[in-house]
Amino acid sequence: MNFILKNENALFYECGYSCDNALFLKLEDEAFFITDARYSFEASEMIKNAKVVLAQDLFASARELLEKAGIDRVCFDPKDFSYFEFKELSKSANIVFEEKLDLSKNKRIIKNTKELQLLQNAVNFGKECFEEFAKFISQEGHGKSEKELHFKACEIFQKKGALGLSFSPIVAINENAAKAHALPSDKCLEYGDLLLVDAGVVYQRYCSDRTRTACFDESGIVFDKNKPNFKDKEIMQIYEVVKQAQLQAIEKARVGMMARELDFIAREVIKNAGFEKEFIHSLGHGVGLDIHELPNISPRSDYELKEGMVFTIEPGIYIKDKLGIRIEDMIYLDKEKAVVL
Amino acid sequence: MNFILKNENALFYECGYSCDNALFLKLEDEAFFITDARYSFEASEMIKNAKVVLAQDLFASARELLEKAGIDRVCFDPKDFSYFEFKELSKSANIVFEEKLDLSKNKRIIKNTKELQLLQNAVNFGKECFEEFAKFISQEGHGKSEKELHFKACEIFQKKGALGLSFSPIVAINENAAKAHALPSDKCLEYGDLLLVDAGVVYQRYCSDRTRTACFDESGIVFDKNKPNFKDKEIMQIYEVVKQAQLQAIEKARVGMMARELDFIAREVIKNAGFEKEFIHSLGHGVGLDIHELPNISPRSDYELKEGMVFTIEPGIYIKDKLGIRIEDMIYLDKEKAVVL
Repeated sequence: MNFILKNENALFYECGYSCDNALFLKLEDEAFFITDARYSFEASEMIKNAKVVLAQDLFASARELLEKAGIDRVCFDPKDFSYFEFKELSKSANIVFEEKLDLSKNKRIIKNTKELQLLQNAVNFGKECFEEFAKFISQEGHGKSEKELHFKACEIFQKKGALGLSFSPIVAINENAAKAHALPSDKCLEYGDLLLVDAGVVYQRYCSDRTRTACFDESGIVFDKNKPNFKDKEIMQIYEVVKQAQLQAIEKARVGMMARELDFIAREVIKNAGFEKEFIHSLGHGVGLDIHELPNISPRSDYELKEGMVFTIEPGIYIKDKLGIRIEDMIYLDKEKAVVL
Repeated sequence: MNFILKNENALFYECGYSCDNALFLKLEDEAFFITDARYSFEASEMIKNAKVVLAQDLFASARELLEKAGIDRVCFDPKDFSYFEFKELSKSANIVFEEKLDLSKNKRIIKNTKELQLLQNAVNFGKECFEEFAKFISQEGHGKSEKELHFKACEIFQKKGALGLSFSPIVAINENAAKAHALPSDKCLEYGDLLLVDAGVVYQRYCSDRTRTACFDESGIVFDKNKPNFKDKEIMQIYEVVKQAQLQAIEKARVGMMARELDFIAREVIKNAGFEKEFIHSLGHGVGLDIHELPNISPRSDYELKEGMVFTIEPGIYIKDKLGIRIEDMIYLDKEKAVVL
């Protein structure tokens, strides 16, 4: 299959290097990394399996290379190119551009041993950062605003530049946690508050993703999903529902199952407790070079679960103006069962 | 003009709020902000001039709203939508989607008084951060790697979370500065080294952008473009060429001039000094909500310079395996002349 890619992680997956203005063209016998003069030196140093081509107009250069090689059919991901870029690319009347939705993400859906190791490392670093963040909150968190806590989370999860952030951490108190993707506000952390933290790191370009929800009190905070410490009985009950939903999904995930069946397992637990409408998102998503990869674990997902897939399981219950509770872990699907990373 | 937008800064410009999964639909008499349930509470709180519509499929929802309003023509930016999204959007046979390249960026090309104030504030904060970074390097920079310096730059330019980064700072030593967009390496800073720093902040969503190139020695480093302190005579000469190129462009920028004429003024200075091939990029770019806005100041730019435009002037000379020198400031085009922000 001849194909052309633009997304940075897709490029990195193919040749171990990427930059923000490049195309990767894979033909039967050869491959080209097309970029501009700014990236010339680095690209030439880093890329071994493709020829680096410099151009001012990347798309014109791609068309020329295709015409020169006598290629008349190239696959592309319609999500990877803007409509403008697609039109630039397909100016050549003689070449058919064939749509392959999620071309690179589908190539990357099964993780190899090296990738699994990098993902496990990322998850381990992520865990360490959660512990460090808990320590900080326990010692200095009282009275700090979500914005201040968010900034500190950014600092901790980057470990002085050794790691990247897989996304801007979510640090949400009480009713702000009901906003599944809350922006940090000026609201300050008080004793007895519920705190939701959703954060992950990037280690050698691979992402981690984790969410914990816990109660902050005079003794501090612990991000242990099995030791909830909410004083309010109702909150405790809701927490147990979310925890059960996650546990059921982790225990029952199997190779050969449809992703939507797995979503259904968790959703049933929440539905049976009366919170169907309060679980407003999918159960999970693949994780790899991108924080959101395939398979998507949603009620409409057509993906079959296979050995070597890595994805999140993250049920949640959100009650407007009151609270949000989400528990999220990354799992690796082994031949026989799901293994929590 | 009816139009539809997706880009976050374009959305923010229209309604003062944005999130990463939304469409903004502007019709003659009404406007809609279409997003999913995760952003429901925040969107409703923040948006006053558009109706918030919740949907799982944003594009289907947009089509429905258009059909319901009896609209048969909508403008969109072909750079703002992936080919996949464009196809989703244009599924309705009855609606013509008309291409308007850089629709939002063209709307934003002239900055109003409030925006100018925000940009000036961003530039001021950026300057402060440069000074703080120089202080850090002077005291603790010796022996630090580009990666460590880069991390410290990220920390300083974010001011404990009060600001954002307008892009990942470039911190490049000697020959690494020849890579116009260098990634930080393990190379360590020694006395006598050339250091190029290109960095900016985001203040209330508006960006700053600035580059300084200076020599680090036993007395530290100062990012004053008018006081170069390179020991090497040849480097000093190259620096003076870049400085003259910038100065000429700043002094001669006028309302009514074509952007490419301004690029030409700086390029001639560099060409006459024999470095034409070593100035490998455009002279500058607009800055606003996006770090790269219109007008582009390049040899092929068709934009006419107008009062109220804000853009960078950033000539550079890059000599492979040796050095890169760039000087960059943001300017505001006044009725009579360019004002350095």
